Amino acid sequence: MKLLVINGPNLNFLGIREKSVYGKQDYNYMLEQIDNKATSLGITIDVFQSNSEGEIIDRIQKAYFDEVDGVIINPGAYTHYSYAIRDALASLLVPKIEVHISNIHKREDFRHISVTAAGCDGQIAGLGLNGYLLAIDGIINMLESN
Amino acid sequence: MKLLVINGPNLNFLGIREKSVYGKQDYNYMLEQIDNKATSLGITIDVFQSNSEGEIIDRIQKAYFDEVDGVIINPGAYTHYSYAIRDALASLLVPKIEVHISNIHKREDFRHISVTAAGCDGQIAGLGLNGYLLAIDGIINMLESN
Amino acid sequence: MKLLVINGPNLNFLGIREKSVYGKQDYNYMLEQIDNKATSLGITIDVFQSNSEGEIIDRIQKAYFDEVDGVIINPGAYTHYSYAIRDALASLLVPKIEVHISNIHKREDFRHISVTAAGCDGQIAGLGLNGYLLAIDGIINMLESN
Amino acid sequence: MKLLVINGPNLNFLGIREKSVYGKQDYNYMLEQIDNKATSLGITIDVFQSNSEGEIIDRIQKAYFDEVDGVIINPGAYTHYSYAIRDALASLLVPKIEVHISNIHKREDFRHISVTAAGCDGQIAGLGLNGYLLAIDGIINMLESN
Amino acid sequence: MKLLVINGPNLNFLGIREKSVYGKQDYNYMLEQIDNKATSLGITIDVFQSNSEGEIIDRIQKAYFDEVDGVIINPGAYTHYSYAIRDALASLLVPKIEVHISNIHKREDFRHISVTAAGCDGQIAGLGLNGYLLAIDGIINMLESN
Amino acid sequence: MKLLVINGPNLNFLGIREKSVYGKQDYNYMLEQIDNKATSLGITIDVFQSNSEGEIIDRIQKAYFDEVDGVIINPGAYTHYSYAIRDALASLLVPKIEVHISNIHKREDFRHISVTAAGCDGQIAGLGLNGYLLAIDGIINMLESN
Amino acid sequence: MKLLVINGPNLNFLGIREKSVYGKQDYNYMLEQIDNKATSLGITIDVFQSNSEGEIIDRIQKAYFDEVDGVIINPGAYTHYSYAIRDALASLLVPKIEVHISNIHKREDFRHISVTAAGCDGQIAGLGLNGYLLAIDGIINMLESN
Amino acid sequence: MKLLVINGPNLNFLGIREKSVYGKQDYNYMLEQIDNKATSLGITIDVFQSNSEGEIIDRIQKAYFDEVDGVIINPGAYTHYSYAIRDALASLLVPKIEVHISNIHKREDFRHISVTAAGCDGQIAGLGLNGYLLAIDGIINMLESN
Amino acid sequence: MKLLVINGPNLNFLGIREKSVYGKQDYNYMLEQIDNKATSLGITIDVFQSNSEGEIIDRIQKAYFDEVDGVIINPGAYTHYSYAIRDALASLLVPKIEVHISNIHKREDFRHISVTAAGCDGQIAGLGLNGYLLAIDGIINMLESN
Amino acid sequence: MKLLVINGPNLNFLGIREKSVYGKQDYNYMLEQIDNKATSLGITIDVFQSNSEGEIIDRIQKAYFDEVDGVIINPGAYTHYSYAIRDALASLLVPKIEVHISNIHKREDFRHISVTAAGCDGQIAGLGLNGYLLAIDGIINMLESN
Amino acid sequence: MKLLVINGPNLNFLGIREKSVYGKQDYNYMLEQIDNKATSLGITIDVFQSNSEGEIIDRIQKAYFDEVDGVIINPGAYTHYSYAIRDALASLLVPKIEVHISNIHKREDFRHISVTAAGCDGQIAGLGLNGYLLAIDGIINMLESN
Amino acid sequence: MKLLVINGPNLNFLGIREKSVYGKQDYNYMLEQIDNKATSLGITIDVFQSNSEGEIIDRIQKAYFDEVDGVIINPGAYTHYSYAIRDALASLLVPKIEVHISNIHKREDFRHISVTAAGCDGQIAGLGLNGYLLAIDGIINMLESN
Repeated sequence: MKLLVINGPNLNFLGIREKSVYGKQDYNYMLEQIDNKATSLGITIDVFQSNSEGEIIDRIQKAYFDEVDGVIINPGAYTHYSYAIRDALASLLVPKIEVHISNIHKREDFRHISVTAAGCDGQIAGLGLNGYLLAIDGIINMLESN
Repeated sequence: MKLLVINGPNLNFLGIREKSVYGKQDYNYMLEQIDNKATSLGITIDVFQSNSEGEIIDRIQKAYFDEVDGVIINPGAYTHYSYAIRDALASLLVPKIEVHISNIHKREDFRHISVTAAGCDGQIAGLGLNGYLLAIDGIINMLESN
Repeated sequence: MKLLVINGPNLNFLGIREKSVYGKQDYNYMLEQIDNKATSLGITIDVFQSNSEGEIIDRIQKAYFDEVDGVIINPGAYTHYSYAIRDALASLLVPKIEVHISNIHKREDFRHISVTAAGCDGQIAGLGLNGYLLAIDGIINMLESN
Repeated sequence: MKLLVINGPNLNFLGIREKSVYGKQDYNYMLEQIDNKATSLGITIDVFQSNSEGEIIDRIQKAYFDEVDGVIINPGAYTHYSYAIRDALASLLVPKIEVHISNIHKREDFRHISVTAAGCDGQIAGLGLNGYLLAIDGIINMLESN
Repeated sequence: MKLLVINGPNLNFLGIREKSVYGKQDYNYMLEQIDNKATSLGITIDVFQSNSEGEIIDRIQKAYFDEVDGVIINPGAYTHYSYAIRDALASLLVPKIEVHISNIHKREDFRHISVTAAGCDGQIAGLGLNGYLLAIDGIINMLESN
Repeated sequence: MKLLVINGPNLNFLGIREKSVYGKQDYNYMLEQIDNKATSLGITIDVFQSNSEGEIIDRIQKAYFDEVDGVIINPGAYTHYSYAIRDALASLLVPKIEVHISNIHKREDFRHISVTAAGCDGQIAGLGLNGYLLAIDGIINMLESN
Repeated sequence: MKLLVINGPNLNFLGIREKSVYGKQDYNYMLEQIDNKATSLGITIDVFQSNSEGEIIDRIQKAYFDEVDGVIINPGAYTHYSYAIRDALASLLVPKIEVHISNIHKREDFRHISVTAAGCDGQIAGLGLNGYLLAIDGIINMLESN
Repeated sequence: MKLLVINGPNLNFLGIREKSVYGKQDYNYMLEQIDNKATSLGITIDVFQSNSEGEIIDRIQKAYFDEVDGVIINPGAYTHYSYAIRDALASLLVPKIEVHISNIHKREDFRHISVTAAGCDGQIAGLGLNGYLLAIDGIINMLESN
Repeated sequence: MKLLVINGPNLNFLGIREKSVYGKQDYNYMLEQIDNKATSLGITIDVFQSNSEGEIIDRIQKAYFDEVDGVIINPGAYTHYSYAIRDALASLLVPKIEVHISNIHKREDFRHISVTAAGCDGQIAGLGLNGYLLAIDGIINMLESN
Repeated sequence: MKLLVINGPNLNFLGIREKSVYGKQDYNYMLEQIDNKATSLGITIDVFQSNSEGEIIDRIQKAYFDEVDGVIINPGAYTHYSYAIRDALASLLVPKIEVHISNIHKREDFRHISVTAAGCDGQIAGLGLNGYLLAIDGIINMLESN
Repeated sequence: MKLLVINGPNLNFLGIREKSVYGKQDYNYMLEQIDNKATSLGITIDVFQSNSEGEIIDRIQKAYFDEVDGVIINPGAYTHYSYAIRDALASLLVPKIEVHISNIHKREDFRHISVTAAGCDGQIAGLGLNGYLLAIDGIINMLESN
Repeated sequence: MKLLVINGPNLNFLGIREKSVYGKQDYNYMLEQIDNKATSLGITIDVFQSNSEGEIIDRIQKAYFDEVDGVIINPGAYTHYSYAIRDALASLLVPKIEVHISNIHKREDFRHISVTAAGCDGQIAGLGLNGYLLAIDGIINMLESN
């Protein structure tokens, strides 16, 4: 089983950026957490980060050709306006979960709407880095239920 | 450890109501799933269902006096307009996660906004009944991280 | 044949409340009218009134188990915001007609939109108490056409 | 007693146009239904159809001079923007009921608002062709109650 | 003279809930304050609290039959969407004042509009628990001026 | 000098329709008033009325070929949505004044905006039938100033 | 007979300001025009100009005590937001006409709505300085018709 | 093969009206262009123009009975509000293309939305009179691809 | 103790202006009422009225230098758009209460929102002139509670 | 003659992505079609695809230096929010046509508005891949007419 | 060279009012800073402050007659609604720069839009008192570039 | 001291693109101006330009690691929708000023709102290329004031 985690703009600045919102753990800590999870599950999980909308779409399309089994995506601020990422996600028919570290539903108004979630199967928000790990469990559960 | 799951209006009609949206499993199946999870974790999980906004608020307030350790709530359609449930949730300082069985972000416009999620710590949507189980894991993780 | 009439908040105050809008006849008069209609048609018509959104949903769900043949509902002011009642109505597959005594289309702006009518098959508004009797005829016609 | 039924744009295409929305019966069938009703009630009912907003207003004004006892109107798509038809209807002081074959409240957003219903006494929507017959009953009831 | 004070959802959590917004005094303190006022004025003041929209409407209707002389209502979060409570208040012709403990005009956007105040004679907001006592004075003044 | 007065939908119902809004004088009285004005000024004034948007546009286009010197138009309810009449008026380069008998700025919201006035040089509203006579003076003044 | 003309902000800059919009004639020319009109009609017309919202309201109130017979007001940009001027105008029961030199209906969006016109009997827009003279005629006509 | 071109309000004023927007060529030139195209393709193309919304709908309905193979329509300003034309177009199942001479996407805001295009298969805008000729090619291509 | 009452535009026209809305008592009556209250409380209350937004701000600023103990303000129509008065009020740290004579929550839409109340501690609306007296009590209560 | 075709995000997934919307033909088929057209016309047509907003702008700028004779662009989902692409297109003074394969006017609301079309001369939507070929004809026609 | 600095409502309360937003320096400090700048540049700079919209317009008009070479204006809260100040600024053809001490773009929503900036050449916001000094440099640069 | 200037999409087309809006000077001229300023101040100023949202975010993040002392950014059209750039700017704690060459406040509506300015300390708009030089002065002043 091969999963892909895509992190959008500014997520590489975890631990640097607005710690009161995103927590003190840095991006390497996130990578380790996901790695540990992959090891313990005996599966492959690639993690990709880019600040570029285009590169994120490229990576989603590559996942199609790589025959990835599931995608976890945190589109960062693109969540709120990137219809292009939404369209890319909609092309991919494997299980897809959108993750947000903070609870976007209680921040600024513009963060309350996700246009990319409509290209996914579901969304997990506000559970910190653990949201990624739960999303992995969620993807596996979806694959097993099919 | 004592958790509370609150299900709002029409969730007792799982398996009866709009199966293409909410799946074929019925409400008893959900109760079993949560029960099994509680047993395997060795914790207590109460499940409460009501179609009444007022009773849901009463139950949230009772959780305060019962010193519940965490709350999982699926406010059903109240999600989109019950500022009263949001205020009740905001009074309760334990970890709280909102769950939706379907991916509300790709349904009718009015379902894209959650006013109750702002009274919770996070939200899980679109992962089916498994969303409840992941929310339980999420709550426990939050309790352990504090 | 068994029909159910559900009256929402403040309808029990007919004849007391804003007579220039809702007419001078009181709630008992409405009950008699419906009773006479039932007798003349040789069918059973239960009438239920509640000011509570939750109890209205409970009653709609009970209609499912009672195998009611059709529902006539006047959700009162809930018409304009109760997505929970709309969802409950959507679960029920028998003919359903929404009734309003006054012509909501020429009153305050907020009364021009019905969110519950989308859970019904049709709507009758502005025909006074006679609207209920016509709705009964409408339900029967729908049942006979199927 | 003399009633007038006005059908707006595209209603003459009943049975041709979007049958899944408007049903399989054609316009002649509607005319027959109304004719039978008139005969059984022993009254005169004229039916008029036009695709033109201006001709519909002309016909409403003619009804004033003809001293028609009541008007049933299905303004078709003009329902949603013709303030001119609304003003014409408002000039006429006899009972007036707006009819829609389909349940406009569960179709596209623009069909949820009727600007012409504010020029009528009431509205019947979603009851198919039977809505016209119920409207005739409704008009007669209004005339008798006065 | 007999007055009624109605407190809506979450007001029983005074002193527990968001103290920085609603103050440190608890619900019992409010009850005492109102009691003392009643005693000093030599009148009867009943206080009712419910988290349920339906029960609040029931209580308003009961006030009609009890021939209460005036009503003070704090509809809590229902203030911002309960057209059903507004309609119930509109049925009651005695003096009615809406009270809010906090200054809703400087909190979140959704709290700036009151739909229930249109069913009352006036509104007092932001004066803390003293707002209830001033409302009692206001009601008495209105009764004396008539 | 040759002027054209165009009256839109329902203006022929002056003196019949909503007298409290439009006054008691009937359409013939308006024709006489304009006739008297024409005679006293020694000019030709044609008056045209139609309930049809298309015929109004036809008449505006005819005015182009007739080399009319100025146009006074009361588009009735078309004022608020007929971009087609606006476009027709914009083709005509002679002085054009929009007239409304009532003060549209203090009636329903939808009447506050004129989309056709943008195709004219100016607007006179709320001065009753005298508005037409002042518009004639206005047109003549504009022609003389050029 | 005693009329009052009130000119709001920037109207004293006629002939200086945006000549392509307001024309080349200056403010003194307007004063002369109005003076000539007054002389020819044998009436008194005071003209007042102020850039201050408060002074305009003061002047409207003074008109009440002066028992002015009619008011012509060009509120300039205050037209679009001064509910205070609207309220002042509403206190005054004599004929009142709002005048705009340019056709506000074809300029920027914010100029399409007049909040002050609802405090007047009518509005004349886009007829240049002649609009003032026609408004004087309009006021006299209204006084004579009463 | 038989095609129909429908031109809406004011299109007959090509070459007269707003030449900077619509070009210098007149309506006869358009007719010739379409004629030449028909001749060179060896097909029949009828061209119809009307300023009336109703007549345009009549003509669309006639096309149904005439068994026209495709329709090209420029609804003029009706594009932006005629839901009645949209409904008529939706009844017709042959290829349909909406044409606009000017680029409506860079003109006034109200011209950016087409409600009639949803009743067609596609839209060509901003290519001048050539848009009609390309639409003819487009229709033929659609017919050949089926 | 020294309090200041500020009355905004048109409040000096009490008893003259729209008596059905604001009551029959005139401005002098209000002054007397406040005077009597001051005398009975043994405190100083200055009352200031101005139609000018700028003078109201000047007076608020003067209150800062005069070390006034509390401010009661009825900003009249400025309530709905004067962000400048709101900012002035926000500079002043003593207790401040906004008063409205009528119940602004059940009048025109534009009166439902107060932008100035966000610069105050609270608001009293709809209690007639008595609202001022209750506001005085409210201020004193706030001062005593600190 | 040298033309440039720019395809935005996800267009390389033609034939893979949402075939019911975009058709079954794949991206290579599109390239062939354009190639054949270029050959038959004896002109050069470059085709460029990128998922990146920035690269699309870079390519538009390169077209300026390459002295391309015309541009055909399908900005994909960027159509609906990329003001940056619109600005880039506006810098380029050669003929430019926006193309959409599907009829964006009958899909989700957000697809009804094109912000990039305002940077082009026209738009062709809903004609499938043939839209590109017609756009080439359109560009050539524009170049020949100049 | 003669410049004018206009400060709108509440700016005289610098150092008193909301110091966390506007800084600790008071209004005299601002005057000194501007004075020093004028001296060092060898030019005349008048500074004017008023809380009154009308006086600000008067001062702008006076600048016209004084032949001032440039204007720097901080309209305070009038920035967000004073179309009257905007119109006054538009009459004046010398360089004009709007200044805001705080970064209005990250404060409340209503402060994000400036209606007065459209009457100026540019805007400087968020640079504290230094914004005024930079604006002086900006004006001089503009004068020298002409 | 080390500053960074970031120029967003299409700014490299200065002197090519819409000269009436952005002026005649080209991008090299801007580079020279900034260079001269750096030399005269004895500081280092890097200038970066990209059409890509992602590269702009990358460059902002690089500035964090490079320990740049201040950032000047002109996000071009991204100003109006790039929440991703706003978030990147918010991570960087040095002084940041947004610059626009033209006065965005008097151009199209969509340019009136800056979503990126909320990630900066201030904004300078409409002062041409000089805006960059003033921003440099502004940054230095901010650094010196700390």
